Amino acid sequence: MNAHIISIGDELLIGQTVNSNASFIGNALTDIQIKVAKISVVGDDEEDIVTEIKEAFDKVDLIVVTGGLGPTHDDVTREAVIKYFGTELIKSDAVLEDIRNRFTRLGREVTSVNEDQAMVPLIGRVIRNYHGTAPGYWIDQKGKILVVMPGVPFEMKAMMNEYVIEHLKEIVEPILKSFTKKHTLLTTGIPESTLYEKLGDLNELLGDAKLAFLPSQFGVKLRITLTEANEEIANNKISEIEQRIRGLVGRFIYGRGDEKLYEVVARLLTSRGLTISVAESCTGGYISNLLTNVSGSSKYFERAIVSYSTAAKVEMLKVDEDLIAKHGSVSLEVARQMADGVRAISMTDIGISVTGIMGPLGGTSSKSVGTVFIGFCDEKVCTAQKFQFGDDRILNKQRTAQTVLDMIRKYILGIPFDA
Amino acid sequence: MNAHIISIGDELLIGQTVNSNASFIGNALTDIQIKVAKISVVGDDEEDIVTEIKEAFDKVDLIVVTGGLGPTHDDVTREAVIKYFGTELIKSDAVLEDIRNRFTRLGREVTSVNEDQAMVPLIGRVIRNYHGTAPGYWIDQKGKILVVMPGVPFEMKAMMNEYVIEHLKEIVEPILKSFTKKHTLLTTGIPESTLYEKLGDLNELLGDAKLAFLPSQFGVKLRITLTEANEEIANNKISEIEQRIRGLVGRFIYGRGDEKLYEVVARLLTSRGLTISVAESCTGGYISNLLTNVSGSSKYFERAIVSYSTAAKVEMLKVDEDLIAKHGSVSLEVARQMADGVRAISMTDIGISVTGIMGPLGGTSSKSVGTVFIGFCDEKVCTAQKFQFGDDRILNKQRTAQTVLDMIRKYILGIPFDA
Repeated sequence: MNAHIISIGDELLIGQTVNSNASFIGNALTDIQIKVAKISVVGDDEEDIVTEIKEAFDKVDLIVVTGGLGPTHDDVTREAVIKYFGTELIKSDAVLEDIRNRFTRLGREVTSVNEDQAMVPLIGRVIRNYHGTAPGYWIDQKGKILVVMPGVPFEMKAMMNEYVIEHLKEIVEPILKSFTKKHTLLTTGIPESTLYEKLGDLNELLGDAKLAFLPSQFGVKLRITLTEANEEIANNKISEIEQRIRGLVGRFIYGRGDEKLYEVVARLLTSRGLTISVAESCTGGYISNLLTNVSGSSKYFERAIVSYSTAAKVEMLKVDEDLIAKHGSVSLEVARQMADGVRAISMTDIGISVTGIMGPLGGTSSKSVGTVFIGFCDEKVCTAQKFQFGDDRILNKQRTAQTVLDMIRKYILGIPFDA
Repeated sequence: MNAHIISIGDELLIGQTVNSNASFIGNALTDIQIKVAKISVVGDDEEDIVTEIKEAFDKVDLIVVTGGLGPTHDDVTREAVIKYFGTELIKSDAVLEDIRNRFTRLGREVTSVNEDQAMVPLIGRVIRNYHGTAPGYWIDQKGKILVVMPGVPFEMKAMMNEYVIEHLKEIVEPILKSFTKKHTLLTTGIPESTLYEKLGDLNELLGDAKLAFLPSQFGVKLRITLTEANEEIANNKISEIEQRIRGLVGRFIYGRGDEKLYEVVARLLTSRGLTISVAESCTGGYISNLLTNVSGSSKYFERAIVSYSTAAKVEMLKVDEDLIAKHGSVSLEVARQMADGVRAISMTDIGISVTGIMGPLGGTSSKSVGTVFIGFCDEKVCTAQKFQFGDDRILNKQRTAQTVLDMIRKYILGIPFDA
């Protein structure tokens, strides 16, 4: 079964909204062995939507449409759908009741604008919306399936998770003749072309599998794709390939699939029973935010000091005022004392610090924008290291955090920081 | 002039990567009065890419393609382009030199894989890449323009900003007969349908302009679109409409365009000369991270304590241990003492705190996941308030931060918190 995802909304065309919905749907469909052949985005225009649905119906088995179902005048997807099928709207009592219950629960009056959302296409089934007012539709026609959902991400996601995926699986699973597995290894700290060369002869490495390189500023993802007779064979072969890849570039691989580096680090800290504290200056709390993005983070995360001012560094982290006067707040020496200081007051196994110039303003002749010092202390050793990033403030925060997290990973796994 | 953006890459179809490139390009083209008619995504498949370029050439004046130009075997965009035009590749000495210089600068060896990237389509001009190895192409054919760029976001963005936009403007500006202005007002704290009703008769409000409602979990964006004979007339009319909208729902509007709430708050704090400190528990540094996302944030941001452990709350924020024992760390009373405590030690004008249960685990019978207490103190008053968010950890952090930032905005502007 193959699919075409159609996202609707002027806000997507003019770049006001990033199309995260299509990614979510693409990922969910791929997981259940539906091949996403195409994604397209069209504006809030009835005719454009009809044209796009028509083209998709000619080519694929499943069309998933999101957006344009809201209560306001610029939402025209429902009208495009009934026009394409030459059908009409009827009132759904179930949807009307959902809408009324929802408003009662929120303590708000139902408006006629909202009640109109209970009008649904005569053909097809309603997908109920437990997180908003616009229902979705599932329409079987001409041997193909059209699924229509609202564009508000959490409403769409709930419909996908609670209804659409289950119903698609019922159709897809009995007819599966082969199983395509996609498996991604996440690397950081090695450039794409170096990785490519270290992997050597790809045919030898991969056999029938395909390998894709996905580079970003934070690392390169390696995606292996393999089609086999069934899931078990695919899993076994992928696992062999992963072992061979790890043999060549293992220390740069921090995780799999859509794992986040902070999740990997959280797991490592938890499993080793280690605790951590952070003294952040230039990253302003971003590292601590990542370290606490995981449920149960209080097991390893003790506290952080976002010591933006000099006073905070001196009073809370016991950094030597003379040292700041001599070397400046952004220095190897201060980074080391900050890490040492936060570890001491928090009584954690690891103490980490960052101080730097995130930009775009604030660079000096001796310390340019993007200069960052990272301090790292445990009970035995207290070190600090200098890094040079770019001139984009947000990106600098992210790259600094990525570097710190990868240092924690390497530390726990016994990999040298410079490997 | 109208445009079709084609993004290439299996990683986009299977949802591994969110298509932020298309948003960036859509936004940049809209800004220079090019109408984006469609965005589509196809996989790393030569035939699919050729088909998509062909369809786009039939319908629009400008096609912008990104992705699939990398040095590895799964990159086939260049081959699709020469196949579509029936042209061939030639070696570009300028590109080869760029690649060699780049590698020398990075202290790395040029590989044959990288040198192959100097082979470019015979027709068209090269767009040089100062941030990576793959060049872009600008091809004028059949009275239409095809622009091809790499998919790595910062490489593509640099090419757009430094080359593509300037060259497109030279073509577009002389032929402009009207000017379309898009202007967005950002609201928070008011539901879409309430906003819709408060705005009343839209025809009266808008005249010839169009209004779109873009809801998310953080607020509703109002996008006004208006076409006039020239930019000045459009600006004046938009400004009148904005005034009328502000008259109806002004206190919910925190900004314009793609402004972030933290930027608005940063500006307000800076202009009033106010300083702030934060005691974060459940948000783990996220609020401080946002408050320091702006260059110059050290003017108003003094420090933050991410007091995850009870020890940190008691030792650093001087929260009463008995109070924690009696009410629990997640309580109105502790929130108030945390805000008071961080303000006292930091000597700032404003002290803010959050303590809550972000989930998905950790809820109790009396305090469910999503319960958050926010404390807010200035030199005169110290208050705390309870909020109930959902069960998604990351979303709960974001909604808590949004709420805190909007409280700061309201505080500075003299709008009551419950308005």
